[in-house]
Amino acid sequence: MQTVTVELGERSYPIHIGGGLLRQPQLLAPVLGRRDAVIVTNDVVGPLYLAAAREACGGRCRAEVVLPDGEAHKTMATIGRVLDGLVAARAGRDAVIVALGGGVVGDIAGFAAAIYQRGIDFIQVPTTLLAQVDSSVGGKTGVNHPGGKNLVGAFHQPRLVLADTDTLATLPPREYAAGLAEVVKYGLIADAPFFDWLEAQHEALLARDAATVAAAIRRCCELKAAIVGEDEREADRRALLNLGHTFGHAIEVRAGYGEWLHGEAVAAGMVMAARFSARLGLLDRAVPARVETLLAAMGLPCVAPADDADGFLTAMNMDKKVLAGRLRLVLLDRIGAARLTADFPGGELEAFLREQLAA
Amino acid sequence: MQTVTVELGERSYPIHIGGGLLRQPQLLAPVLGRRDAVIVTNDVVGPLYLAAAREACGGRCRAEVVLPDGEAHKTMATIGRVLDGLVAARAGRDAVIVALGGGVVGDIAGFAAAIYQRGIDFIQVPTTLLAQVDSSVGGKTGVNHPGGKNLVGAFHQPRLVLADTDTLATLPPREYAAGLAEVVKYGLIADAPFFDWLEAQHEALLARDAATVAAAIRRCCELKAAIVGEDEREADRRALLNLGHTFGHAIEVRAGYGEWLHGEAVAAGMVMAARFSARLGLLDRAVPARVETLLAAMGLPCVAPADDADGFLTAMNMDKKVLAGRLRLVLLDRIGAARLTADFPGGELEAFLREQLAA
Repeated sequence: MQTVTVELGERSYPIHIGGGLLRQPQLLAPVLGRRDAVIVTNDVVGPLYLAAAREACGGRCRAEVVLPDGEAHKTMATIGRVLDGLVAARAGRDAVIVALGGGVVGDIAGFAAAIYQRGIDFIQVPTTLLAQVDSSVGGKTGVNHPGGKNLVGAFHQPRLVLADTDTLATLPPREYAAGLAEVVKYGLIADAPFFDWLEAQHEALLARDAATVAAAIRRCCELKAAIVGEDEREADRRALLNLGHTFGHAIEVRAGYGEWLHGEAVAAGMVMAARFSARLGLLDRAVPARVETLLAAMGLPCVAPADDADGFLTAMNMDKKVLAGRLRLVLLDRIGAARLTADFPGGELEAFLREQLAA
Repeated sequence: MQTVTVELGERSYPIHIGGGLLRQPQLLAPVLGRRDAVIVTNDVVGPLYLAAAREACGGRCRAEVVLPDGEAHKTMATIGRVLDGLVAARAGRDAVIVALGGGVVGDIAGFAAAIYQRGIDFIQVPTTLLAQVDSSVGGKTGVNHPGGKNLVGAFHQPRLVLADTDTLATLPPREYAAGLAEVVKYGLIADAPFFDWLEAQHEALLARDAATVAAAIRRCCELKAAIVGEDEREADRRALLNLGHTFGHAIEVRAGYGEWLHGEAVAAGMVMAARFSARLGLLDRAVPARVETLLAAMGLPCVAPADDADGFLTAMNMDKKVLAGRLRLVLLDRIGAARLTADFPGGELEAFLREQLAA
């Protein structure tokens, strides 16, 4: 087991990474103590790992809330179901929510923890690669609104993240690849040697070689912990974690939530961000192809569906980072270095989108 | 104009108290600057003060959300309406919500501000006495759940509180008296000389004498600011502000939300808390009658409706402070000194309720 710490003063917490962690109740015990736990999961992960998670809670589990699977259910209505479950379980202020599942479960359960009784503790037990490398760390919680993705939510840090890499064994290939997109993102925005390593190791990663996967998760968590420790509320540097996300959110919204996996949309979005960076002269022209080659080798889609450029741009502008402001994008200066900027001609973006989205 | 400051480090904020404040846009300008404002109000307050509030925003008001009046609408569904309104107005991360109304509007608008885009700024413009002396200060926001009052919410401090005492002129007598109940509460829990002053000034207060009312609001805000500055998240001392509230919540729930005004239920609840304190030998036996006399003189109900003691106790136990724990009550040691305690025989409380609630 490896442990990475997110340093946030009295709200600091450990991320434990490794195999067999759900079989070790002593890992959750420091948080649970004698408090009541309520596990929140979904109907895909539940049948696989709910029994193990209950064991991991060492007799503290008082109730479970099993949600329908999928981004389409990441709504206020589902939050209502979790709150109802907490009330039915008579969960008190010192109860602890255990989020067992992927990014959607973590976002929902974390948000419910943020607002139940004005905030109770929660533990992330991510079971997808995407959640283990990215979404379970950093305290962003929330749900979608018809007006935009993650438009409603809270910053609410977990007390502990338990990333049991054994749970990745049951992950469908498409979901696994979607997680690799976020792994590549960390190399692109913050760590060129890690990007090189990913190029060298992509076959071992795809084969889910345990040591290689654990090393990748650890590096992503280290990078994310450093960024979150520096800029918890995304005043500045944390925004770089959104590389590919504004393009990607538009892909997701235009296709309808749930058609594209989040990581898939981020992959195609990162390729667009790299190409646009090169078009603006920020980035070496050879880099976009290198990014695309790695993502494609990981089985990820690199091309957004043919679309109407105006409609796509409108969707990009619905991103919550843009509302009432000028569209800002995370662009690449080189592999390992990114910037958040609104400093590009709007006409350039429109021309770029027309070219990229042509049928 | 008088100003009281809530000291919370970088989240400190001023409470301005006085007449004619809505006619002074320079008071909101330090927060609004060139940002967009969205006013949230209800269909009773809106027709009276929305135009003035728009003026006070000095041209920054981009949209208004007008909610139905009343505690019955303090629900997640109403939060959804406010969020929809923010999206429709394309409110960005730097938008500011202006809560114009009583405690319900402030709780709803503040909670919407807490969760829209993971938290945006808001300003409280309380227009009821209860909101000016109590609920607009301190950052408690939230809504009710069928399982309990204020069961869902967030701690989210306003950037500014603007208590224009001119707005009290239009307050119906019953609402005004309900606010006086919270004023009396501050004397009971923290300031015996203030309680004496209220006894001496109760006629001037009831007549809404401007200087007397402003002095009472100021003292309540000073006391609340001190308590919140010490214990923002109610780990300890802040709980004393709930004097009468556990009894009162049960009265509200048993009668159906909206039948009793919150302040009315708190008045009857404080009388019950005082009587129970005396019964336990904590409080001088002469005090409950003194409390009742003052509240009655202010036009407040001092007696809970005849009720089934078991059902009432169940409702008390549904209070969110109790879920999964032992029932704790704020009890009085003397006028000006209270304590939160679970240290009383359960049988005593049951016997007390049977006696108090007998038809």
